[in-house]
Amino acid sequence: MINFKIDYADGAHPKILEDLLTTNELQTPGYGEDDYCQQAKTAIRSYLGTQSCEIHFLIGGTQTNLTFISHALKPYEAVLSAQTGHIVTNEVGSIESTGHKIIPLPTVDGKITCDTLTSFFKQPRTMHMVTPKLLYLSNPTELGTLYSKQELEELTQLCHAHHLYLYIDGARLGSGLVAPSNTLTLEDYARLTDAFYIGGTKNGALFGEALILTNPLLAENFRLNMKQKGALLAKGRLLGLQFLTLFKDSLYFEIAHLANQRADELRQGLCHLNLPFFVQTQTNQLFPILPNKILTELSKTFTFTLWEPYDETHSVIRLITSYTTSQEDVIHFLHTLANLYKKDALN
Amino acid sequence: MINFKIDYADGAHPKILEDLLTTNELQTPGYGEDDYCQQAKTAIRSYLGTQSCEIHFLIGGTQTNLTFISHALKPYEAVLSAQTGHIVTNEVGSIESTGHKIIPLPTVDGKITCDTLTSFFKQPRTMHMVTPKLLYLSNPTELGTLYSKQELEELTQLCHAHHLYLYIDGARLGSGLVAPSNTLTLEDYARLTDAFYIGGTKNGALFGEALILTNPLLAENFRLNMKQKGALLAKGRLLGLQFLTLFKDSLYFEIAHLANQRADELRQGLCHLNLPFFVQTQTNQLFPILPNKILTELSKTFTFTLWEPYDETHSVIRLITSYTTSQEDVIHFLHTLANLYKKDALN
Amino acid sequence: MINFKIDYADGAHPKILEDLLTTNELQTPGYGEDDYCQQAKTAIRSYLGTQSCEIHFLIGGTQTNLTFISHALKPYEAVLSAQTGHIVTNEVGSIESTGHKIIPLPTVDGKITCDTLTSFFKQPRTMHMVTPKLLYLSNPTELGTLYSKQELEELTQLCHAHHLYLYIDGARLGSGLVAPSNTLTLEDYARLTDAFYIGGTKNGALFGEALILTNPLLAENFRLNMKQKGALLAKGRLLGLQFLTLFKDSLYFEIAHLANQRADELRQGLCHLNLPFFVQTQTNQLFPILPNKILTELSKTFTFTLWEPYDETHSVIRLITSYTTSQEDVIHFLHTLANLYKKDALN
Amino acid sequence: MINFKIDYADGAHPKILEDLLTTNELQTPGYGEDDYCQQAKTAIRSYLGTQSCEIHFLIGGTQTNLTFISHALKPYEAVLSAQTGHIVTNEVGSIESTGHKIIPLPTVDGKITCDTLTSFFKQPRTMHMVTPKLLYLSNPTELGTLYSKQELEELTQLCHAHHLYLYIDGARLGSGLVAPSNTLTLEDYARLTDAFYIGGTKNGALFGEALILTNPLLAENFRLNMKQKGALLAKGRLLGLQFLTLFKDSLYFEIAHLANQRADELRQGLCHLNLPFFVQTQTNQLFPILPNKILTELSKTFTFTLWEPYDETHSVIRLITSYTTSQEDVIHFLHTLANLYKKDALN
Repeated sequence: MINFKIDYADGAHPKILEDLLTTNELQTPGYGEDDYCQQAKTAIRSYLGTQSCEIHFLIGGTQTNLTFISHALKPYEAVLSAQTGHIVTNEVGSIESTGHKIIPLPTVDGKITCDTLTSFFKQPRTMHMVTPKLLYLSNPTELGTLYSKQELEELTQLCHAHHLYLYIDGARLGSGLVAPSNTLTLEDYARLTDAFYIGGTKNGALFGEALILTNPLLAENFRLNMKQKGALLAKGRLLGLQFLTLFKDSLYFEIAHLANQRADELRQGLCHLNLPFFVQTQTNQLFPILPNKILTELSKTFTFTLWEPYDETHSVIRLITSYTTSQEDVIHFLHTLANLYKKDALN
Repeated sequence: MINFKIDYADGAHPKILEDLLTTNELQTPGYGEDDYCQQAKTAIRSYLGTQSCEIHFLIGGTQTNLTFISHALKPYEAVLSAQTGHIVTNEVGSIESTGHKIIPLPTVDGKITCDTLTSFFKQPRTMHMVTPKLLYLSNPTELGTLYSKQELEELTQLCHAHHLYLYIDGARLGSGLVAPSNTLTLEDYARLTDAFYIGGTKNGALFGEALILTNPLLAENFRLNMKQKGALLAKGRLLGLQFLTLFKDSLYFEIAHLANQRADELRQGLCHLNLPFFVQTQTNQLFPILPNKILTELSKTFTFTLWEPYDETHSVIRLITSYTTSQEDVIHFLHTLANLYKKDALN
Repeated sequence: MINFKIDYADGAHPKILEDLLTTNELQTPGYGEDDYCQQAKTAIRSYLGTQSCEIHFLIGGTQTNLTFISHALKPYEAVLSAQTGHIVTNEVGSIESTGHKIIPLPTVDGKITCDTLTSFFKQPRTMHMVTPKLLYLSNPTELGTLYSKQELEELTQLCHAHHLYLYIDGARLGSGLVAPSNTLTLEDYARLTDAFYIGGTKNGALFGEALILTNPLLAENFRLNMKQKGALLAKGRLLGLQFLTLFKDSLYFEIAHLANQRADELRQGLCHLNLPFFVQTQTNQLFPILPNKILTELSKTFTFTLWEPYDETHSVIRLITSYTTSQEDVIHFLHTLANLYKKDALN
Repeated sequence: MINFKIDYADGAHPKILEDLLTTNELQTPGYGEDDYCQQAKTAIRSYLGTQSCEIHFLIGGTQTNLTFISHALKPYEAVLSAQTGHIVTNEVGSIESTGHKIIPLPTVDGKITCDTLTSFFKQPRTMHMVTPKLLYLSNPTELGTLYSKQELEELTQLCHAHHLYLYIDGARLGSGLVAPSNTLTLEDYARLTDAFYIGGTKNGALFGEALILTNPLLAENFRLNMKQKGALLAKGRLLGLQFLTLFKDSLYFEIAHLANQRADELRQGLCHLNLPFFVQTQTNQLFPILPNKILTELSKTFTFTLWEPYDETHSVIRLITSYTTSQEDVIHFLHTLANLYKKDALN
């Protein structure tokens, strides 16, 4: 089976394994108090344009989201999220399990607009409602789309006006940062958010997410909440070392670039076949609309995600690429698809 | 100010105070282990057509909802609710504070339809989603509408098919039970739900809701969860006595009937003035649409709830009646409104 | 059966019922926004020597404890409590249900000493331990003993030194305030704590506890947490009115004084019979040590709490008095006990 | 600095890195649905004497404890644990953060005895107490001691009698299994517990704990709770592969044996110096009592844990060995210690 389903189907980027091997015998303190963690933080900070923000390394995205959000909020405070947000749909109620409501907002192409947010705050409020306190965005979104610098700046302003923290889930931040249409740098993220995370798991690491706490009020005692939530890795060095490998040179961006390149080739091929898309993306996720009748045949060779029914006879599928996707895989997929169409036309 | 805002603006029905006075000196055990509680349960059970269900008396609606739902669900299980449901909008995230997600569903006139529920279960599900396990309905709904017997029977069947508990919030059950269009008896509620509560606070009691646990699996150790959630009244006799007073004869229904009667008079008067309604109701809540420009004037004499904007120049308001609303109050309101319209027409 | 088991076996003090009756028909806003609540707060504040603290009325002790403590603490912060504390032993894990650990400390006669607290803070601490942030005391303690002004002042100083909030559970504060040995005024409580509550349920009210938030940092948005925890009574006026009745004159203290007087008579009678006590108290709880063989006979006429085994043949029991305990009840109890001893001596 | 402080100061056993390298490019499904996980489970099951129990791989000990315990318990149920238990002292209140009380029990050498448990259940219980439902043991204990087969069998019987689940934290299970005095096999653990975990992190893995759910009632939907708690690793293969490497041959036991051997050499050397021990152990943790005045000097070359003060002039320290501890390290430590004593004697 050829994988277009997930961007974490491999072990890790060879450079990471290489560095793990080289450093394996060294004895270091536990729980992230080692030198690799320090060096990785320094490497990342050099991209943020500030030395003041606190950085923590956690293991996965759901863990990062729940640990951060439960740390930031008081019991009666709630999260605003796109209704397509990962914390709404795919984390088994992890935020609610820490006691907090998520208020789902409608989206355009997976994005929350300023209009949506403004409308929300115009609704009459009573003293029996939760206090919205944190806006959760994913960038790229769960639909592979990107917020522009202007959009993010405007959302940040709205957040300030309504006393909301702005937190960005960067599970696939790499793919976003190197997308052709991207207008946001890591420096921008640091400047415009209260916190965000740089995803490692879906960008070549064995595992790991780097959480950047740019608002110092949210940094106090954060490690205690990490430990409580089971998010403090005993051999924290493994996280430090991986992020050091990814950020000491520009490996993080190279890996993301490879994923985007394969996605581009796939996108162009699908366009060439005149396939419509559910949503236009420039990152490593594609959402073509396919006739149901070829899906079974296609899934004999390729894995992908059945996203949602489009109409009676068509479905939206999600194709995802990674740095491990080969050009051959892309060609194979497009070729197979073309043949299935042809066969179908002959019938 | 004349109250059309809440149906709990008084102390309690005189009969209740009378019985409190008569029994005041008697010494009883605490925490609901007294005779009045037993007698009240017997009185209520005589309406349920079954002696087997467990009954507990709690203090308020939010408390009853959070205590029951947190008892019924496992950590990864969620609630389905109308997006207009009280637990979604007006309880400061109390259900989430016990760890459980609420999935809001779209409604028609405040009601969840079988179609909505069926559509929800047709959506593709992944192994990273919460398990929907409980359907929360309010009857009457937060918009004053009523589920019919047929609707409830069909929803019950769907719940069984999808392994959902069915729980009904009966904060205003009294008004529903005696509404002209009502087709559901307390016996039906006991037969068709896993649990429901009979609201006392909004029907003449000082406070108190009677939770009926018709599914014995949900009854085990319920008192422990009540105590943990601060829901076990020390002088539980006060709850027992009130429900005994309400249910030993038919006082509960008489109180509700009075509220509905006043609502009827108000409804007819508003119709007579050709006022449109946001939603058609037959219970003690009315949702007329009024021009914004008369609201300020109206609110000098009457309290009511500004429900939501209707259009640029009109708003939906909620008027509510209770057994303490007098015919004079209704006439006064209609008269004032008529005059404001007349004045407006002259301008 | 004659009750020496609980001090909440009656309805309420007749004055309270009288005032409920007089005000019953008045229509007031809900949720504690009525005049009675305001007046009650003013009445209570006149005893506190300060106008600045916020006051909220809740329904019961467990509810007050869990609502306040969950409001005061961050997720990784914990409570220090006497191991005999009510929140440790008798509230079904309510504090833990809101996510917080309680660290139980050893006691002397139900009291935490400065030595105990100092020793606790001398223990080596690691970065994987909860942060102790709140000291929970009960006064009177669960053993009926009292902290003196000097003891409380020293504990307050220690709390300041260790950045602990000091919170006092005053379920039976009335009995403490009027005890012969008492050295603490309500003004002292307000001055020395961050929060405390004045118990109504066990001092003549139908129900109700007045929570005094003396630390303004802990007051912010407290009502939201009350609503979330199901602790905001719809007809809040009932709480306001009761505390107004109790505090507009000195009824609260008179009720407590009556309870203590009966306890004194009982104490003297037991001493006269040469009965040893498990702990010396001056409030309305007594802990005599009785031979097991007379307990069964005694419990045919009187209710009391079997506290704990003392030795193979003796048990500690708890006797409690209230303003409803009559002198006849006390005499009856002492007489019965004397006879049982006599009978036993003859055998 | 030479490490006697932690047994997770390295990367991982070379065999594990080797296997990671070999399999790195293979594309597998995520979240533990890969073949390595299946093979690892089969390998582990061959030691358990049963094919029926469910196995899940989690990342760390705190995470495993909180995910399992929150899955097993209802809201009003509590954990019994040694007061020295890791969940009591060193996990920042993680169990309480999921809503459950831990009742700490006194210990003998870090162990709970049947007498202690029996005494606990003899205490009078009221309806306002949590329900003890799970006994948490660590084996080896946090003091390096071991439960014998007979002790565990008796505890298991008591658990059955009191309707308690028995759960064993096996963070250092390897060291226990190969200790000279050990009488328990993995088969025994599977037979005598409802669940236990085999620790990888402290026995040569990069990270990872294998949770064995021997009670099928506790296995239902466990993955959902894992995902919710952030405990489902995206690249689950990494866990599967490591446990496969550890259990396909007997590497797990060899690694543990090496740690114990170094501990033995250290123990003998310390005995030779006539040093007293705080507790007698046969696993990889040692608790010698040392004069405070040499600790500073000793800590210039070696890391270790200052466990607790012993008396005015002595302290208990914890020394820990792992498979990476060299004989040279042990000799160096003993030699340094001998010299410090000699120097001290000369003064």
